[in-house]
Amino acid sequence: MSKKNIQDKLLIFALGGVGEIGKNMYVVQYGNDIVVVDAGLKFPEEDMLGIDIVIPDITYLTENRDKVRGILITHGHEDHIGGLPYVLKHLNVPLYATKLTLGLIEGKLKEAGLLGETKRILINAESEVQLGSIKASFFKTNHSIPDSVGVCLDTPEGTVVHTGDFKFDHTPVNNQYADLQRIADIGRRGVLALLSDSTNAERAGFTPSESMIGSELEDIFRKATQRVVVATFASNVHRIQQVVNAAIATKRKIAVVGRSMVNVVTIASELGYLNIPEGTIIEPEEINKMAADRVAVLSTGSQGEPMSALTRMARSTHRKVDIMPGDTVIIAATPIPGNERYVGRTVDELFRLGANVIYGPGSVSGVHVSGHGSQEELKLMLNLIRPKYFIPIHGEYRMLRQHALLGEAVGIERENIFIVDNGDTVEFQAGTARKGSKVPAGNVLIDGLGVGDVGNIVLRDRKLLSQDGILVVVVTLSKQDGAILSGPDIISRGFVYVRESEGLLEEANRIVTSTLHKLMNDKVNEWASLKTNVKDALGRFLYEQTRRRPMILPIIMEV
Amino acid sequence: MSKKNIQDKLLIFALGGVGEIGKNMYVVQYGNDIVVVDAGLKFPEEDMLGIDIVIPDITYLTENRDKVRGILITHGHEDHIGGLPYVLKHLNVPLYATKLTLGLIEGKLKEAGLLGETKRILINAESEVQLGSIKASFFKTNHSIPDSVGVCLDTPEGTVVHTGDFKFDHTPVNNQYADLQRIADIGRRGVLALLSDSTNAERAGFTPSESMIGSELEDIFRKATQRVVVATFASNVHRIQQVVNAAIATKRKIAVVGRSMVNVVTIASELGYLNIPEGTIIEPEEINKMAADRVAVLSTGSQGEPMSALTRMARSTHRKVDIMPGDTVIIAATPIPGNERYVGRTVDELFRLGANVIYGPGSVSGVHVSGHGSQEELKLMLNLIRPKYFIPIHGEYRMLRQHALLGEAVGIERENIFIVDNGDTVEFQAGTARKGSKVPAGNVLIDGLGVGDVGNIVLRDRKLLSQDGILVVVVTLSKQDGAILSGPDIISRGFVYVRESEGLLEEANRIVTSTLHKLMNDKVNEWASLKTNVKDALGRFLYEQTRRRPMILPIIMEV
Repeated sequence: MSKKNIQDKLLIFALGGVGEIGKNMYVVQYGNDIVVVDAGLKFPEEDMLGIDIVIPDITYLTENRDKVRGILITHGHEDHIGGLPYVLKHLNVPLYATKLTLGLIEGKLKEAGLLGETKRILINAESEVQLGSIKASFFKTNHSIPDSVGVCLDTPEGTVVHTGDFKFDHTPVNNQYADLQRIADIGRRGVLALLSDSTNAERAGFTPSESMIGSELEDIFRKATQRVVVATFASNVHRIQQVVNAAIATKRKIAVVGRSMVNVVTIASELGYLNIPEGTIIEPEEINKMAADRVAVLSTGSQGEPMSALTRMARSTHRKVDIMPGDTVIIAATPIPGNERYVGRTVDELFRLGANVIYGPGSVSGVHVSGHGSQEELKLMLNLIRPKYFIPIHGEYRMLRQHALLGEAVGIERENIFIVDNGDTVEFQAGTARKGSKVPAGNVLIDGLGVGDVGNIVLRDRKLLSQDGILVVVVTLSKQDGAILSGPDIISRGFVYVRESEGLLEEANRIVTSTLHKLMNDKVNEWASLKTNVKDALGRFLYEQTRRRPMILPIIMEV
Repeated sequence: MSKKNIQDKLLIFALGGVGEIGKNMYVVQYGNDIVVVDAGLKFPEEDMLGIDIVIPDITYLTENRDKVRGILITHGHEDHIGGLPYVLKHLNVPLYATKLTLGLIEGKLKEAGLLGETKRILINAESEVQLGSIKASFFKTNHSIPDSVGVCLDTPEGTVVHTGDFKFDHTPVNNQYADLQRIADIGRRGVLALLSDSTNAERAGFTPSESMIGSELEDIFRKATQRVVVATFASNVHRIQQVVNAAIATKRKIAVVGRSMVNVVTIASELGYLNIPEGTIIEPEEINKMAADRVAVLSTGSQGEPMSALTRMARSTHRKVDIMPGDTVIIAATPIPGNERYVGRTVDELFRLGANVIYGPGSVSGVHVSGHGSQEELKLMLNLIRPKYFIPIHGEYRMLRQHALLGEAVGIERENIFIVDNGDTVEFQAGTARKGSKVPAGNVLIDGLGVGDVGNIVLRDRKLLSQDGILVVVVTLSKQDGAILSGPDIISRGFVYVRESEGLLEEANRIVTSTLHKLMNDKVNEWASLKTNVKDALGRFLYEQTRRRPMILPIIMEV
């Protein structure tokens, strides 16, 4: 452990991941040494119209770029690695990750043209990394993607543990056991602060083992008389392995469809995380040449995503795979909140095609288990680590709150538990902690190539436009006497179907004309007044007639 | 039973309610006699931007208005009565409903100015109504609103049973027992076709009794040391009664907040469906004058609806009720699919205010049960009625499909089960059934005062506008030589934040100018060409620069 400087403080804060599910990014700073854990993205909320993805605001890191010693990545999920192409563009610092995680990241960096300039360091659960005064080590955890680790950071002020995403799976697929002994040993040595995954803090009991799914899948494969299509998360390599196993056990070949599924299967096979015997995988084009009961399809689309392979199959618009009556379709996932309707629609369409669809109408089906630990596992982690301070992370506020209650239940002092917002710092000095000042934190919205150029005004306009559309009112006035030379012309988009509403728009036209005439008579001729008056008069009229408030854009030209 | 005419057929079809949850409207026609069951609304799907509500297309009924003998209403939920103000405007026919249902409908008709001209007939479970050649009788069912009935229609071709929405609750609140004997008797006499509620056909087992909630509520009320706020569906009078009982048992007064909650409590109390001792209800203004442990609040907002009372309390913008640290808030409902994020946000905000929030993170909590029967109850109904033909109704396609499988399981012939879309007719003649021709059916969208004036083109425009906004390009050309007299001016709404993107818009300006100059040189001067060329050139440029596709509206004026 490095020497302790009496003036130095330990700071812990989140730039993303608390009060939300997604864009995880946590920061541990001691003196002049900053260590970042994860750099994820978040998918837009329903009021972020037109936005593609959301990443954390990293102003604090770019302003302190000379202090950032590296970014440690816990695992290869998008909400932990998806922000990297944007973050590394502004902050060229070394990246530490395990083999599969690094493999997935490298694909992203290549696409972003950042692979060459990024220093990437392969770690495993035995690695120790000195990052200035902070020593990082790692411990294996169970999660819905292989090669997940937790992080142990020894700082001069004490040890900080970050669990990453985890569950305790006592019968893991591929024998990827969690490092119970190492975790216990970290706890035995004494931990100042624990940051732990709160995703399932609302859920009682234990999360079932991933391996429970294997026999269920094999059962369904065995009973199926025609083709079997399995949709699941592309990143769930354990699940994919079990689909492969079920296919082999029932003498089926596997076609892989969907860009991200092909990508993950390729990388995970190359790196040795998937065991697929040669000759098992076939090209999607070959499906139709084979007997239906000799074929399985592994697909994306378990969330009903509109452009995904399964959705296209369900709509009969997939170029290579047609669903036939009697085919079996397994959706091996539960809908992420917000996706229920999409998934429901996909199931409906598959049933209409005559498929036998196996899906989880409730929260648990036999073909999906969560990758996050439930309350008993969270308490187990708390008791293995026995930290002095506890910061629940990775969850909406209500999940952090429930996790805090679990912390109290296992005996952590209430005042030693910090529920924080993104940007709230917790300061540790001389063994005690308190809330420190705030650092900048927030959502950076990405729309197409634009990073941060869509803000509240643009989003508010999109919202208004989406509700009642827009009317553009064009009129040309004479510079000399203000007489109307042409127009008013009213162009409507997203307001009413014009052919049905001719009378309304004609009347609107008259309102604009008479408003302008009145203003002329009153000698009002500043543009701003003219526009405001036209907007108000027309807006009032349309609201009375339709109870709608379209955006009104008056364009007044003088020639 | 009326005389049978050998040429007459029995037709059954849905104008709303199959392949969807909402806008229930079923039609039974024998010869020249049409009986309608229910006239509901549906809330808009997420791609129906700006739409307020959706009602069924009733073209078939208006075209056959002289044959429509009446509308029978099974119960007072919006998805069964909410379309009435629109339907009755075009179709003035008698309405048959039970007391509470009629009370709720009358409120709606009054608002719509239709109360006077609508013939309303009060029925109860003993009523028999002759509607041309069709005799209607009714049977009590259990559901999440009192006074729910199923309908039995004796036609010359045979008996048709429509269950309405139902569960079998063996310990109902207020002793509202289902008419098991009457249902069994209908079955004993022989039923040609059953139309039965499929809402919970995906759910195994039995739906728990509403009365289970009472003791749970009382328990929470007893433990609460401060105020208790309960949010639930306004129409769930049984639930409201249990909240009242819990408040009385724990010596609390009740304030009622939220427009629809006040409305239902008033009507249900007046009609005798709620038993609230005098002095129990207080005005919301009085809350702050009373000891916190003597107060309960009954509120709307269990779905996290943005404008509801609970949401406003959670955001500290309710004018009369502030949530204090230590208050208990019970959300006695589960989120309807699509509302999960809204409810989650409300829970988060309440927790942030320091409230103790009791909600159901999974699909079932101790403070909510469904009003719809699960698989065992659906099978019980099928076996009580033992119909020859079965048409699952009231549900998305996957629910109808699961219900059909239950029908097969209890022994109905597969070819005697009809899964239909809205508008598909099933024809019965001489005891056998077949799919008949289609009648017009679909969604009529209501936006403000407009009924049906928003169609696919308007919705497509709203979708485009919501994603990337709009750019209006204004330019004035000389009539004589086509020279640019003013502009191009580019106005952006919902595209980019202008101040951040000045360079982009300046460049866009240059693109428009050079496009126009080139066209002038090539002697292209038809407006349509000019507009298309400007649109294409600008669209291409913006997509290259931003990967966005805003709507582009070129406005070219000639003077």
